[in-house]
Amino acid sequence: MKGKRTDLQTDACAIARSLDVIGDWWSLLIVRDAFRERRRFGEFQKSLGLAKNILTTRLRKLVAVGIMGMVPASDGSAYSEYVLTEKGESLYLVIVALWQWGETYAFAPGELNTALVAGEKRKRLAPLELRTRDGRIVGPRDFMWINKLRTQ
Amino acid sequence: MKGKRTDLQTDACAIARSLDVIGDWWSLLIVRDAFRERRRFGEFQKSLGLAKNILTTRLRKLVAVGIMGMVPASDGSAYSEYVLTEKGESLYLVIVALWQWGETYAFAPGELNTALVAGEKRKRLAPLELRTRDGRIVGPRDFMWINKLRTQ
Repeated sequence: MKGKRTDLQTDACAIARSLDVIGDWWSLLIVRDAFRERRRFGEFQKSLGLAKNILTTRLRKLVAVGIMGMVPASDGSAYSEYVLTEKGESLYLVIVALWQWGETYAFAPGELNTALVAGEKRKRLAPLELRTRDGRIVGPRDFMWINKLRTQ
Repeated sequence: MKGKRTDLQTDACAIARSLDVIGDWWSLLIVRDAFRERRRFGEFQKSLGLAKNILTTRLRKLVAVGIMGMVPASDGSAYSEYVLTEKGESLYLVIVALWQWGETYAFAPGELNTALVAGEKRKRLAPLELRTRDGRIVGPRDFMWINKLRTQ
């Protein structure tokens, strides 16, 4: 990221490292589009309205860090397709957390006309819940970072 | 965000809007620091190693969009302090999702020496789980976006 003297690659914080690995906002929107079955350069470009050079850089980085992989086109044509790896798919909780926050705070009532659903029956998703390993719900002011040696 | 012709402020996707409201990676790291009890400009600057003008812009934007608020210094001095609003605190699930992804994918085994815990007993957090409203676990390939009128 620009503007910082030290390198987030070696940052002790897993959030900073995640952000560094992912790349930038665009990279996350590319990942979102991959969850929406976009696979080709042209599909990402159309969806994101992004300049070719910017999209190229982001896709290359996502492949380089192992979030996406390149595979031969599903229709046998000469195009490559970009698909999420397991590492990339694991970003779905980040994607859903951002979606749910946006649902609540970034739309006027009734303005958002899409919803996240799951399964054949298209059941609405519940809001993500944070819990301790023994099942207790954790609120926004109830968590902290500590040295691992002192945890249980 | 740079590089895009259209404005994410009016994007129909809640992820794009969330990213637009939040600002950039730095803004998210400022939010992280606020969860870690940093409150003053100098504290954020020291933690992030960020140029003053960049930090100033990010903090102003976070206040402008209502993620942070400014309050008088807790020690009665002339400094202002920045605190998360309810809207800002609600980003904790995004923060935790990024942390947990980074824990798994951005560190060598044994390299990460901090952990997220909750409560007085400092219980380790469970991995976030996505569920439908009727309680079924939802995996990374099992969710989709649909028009709200067709959901249940």
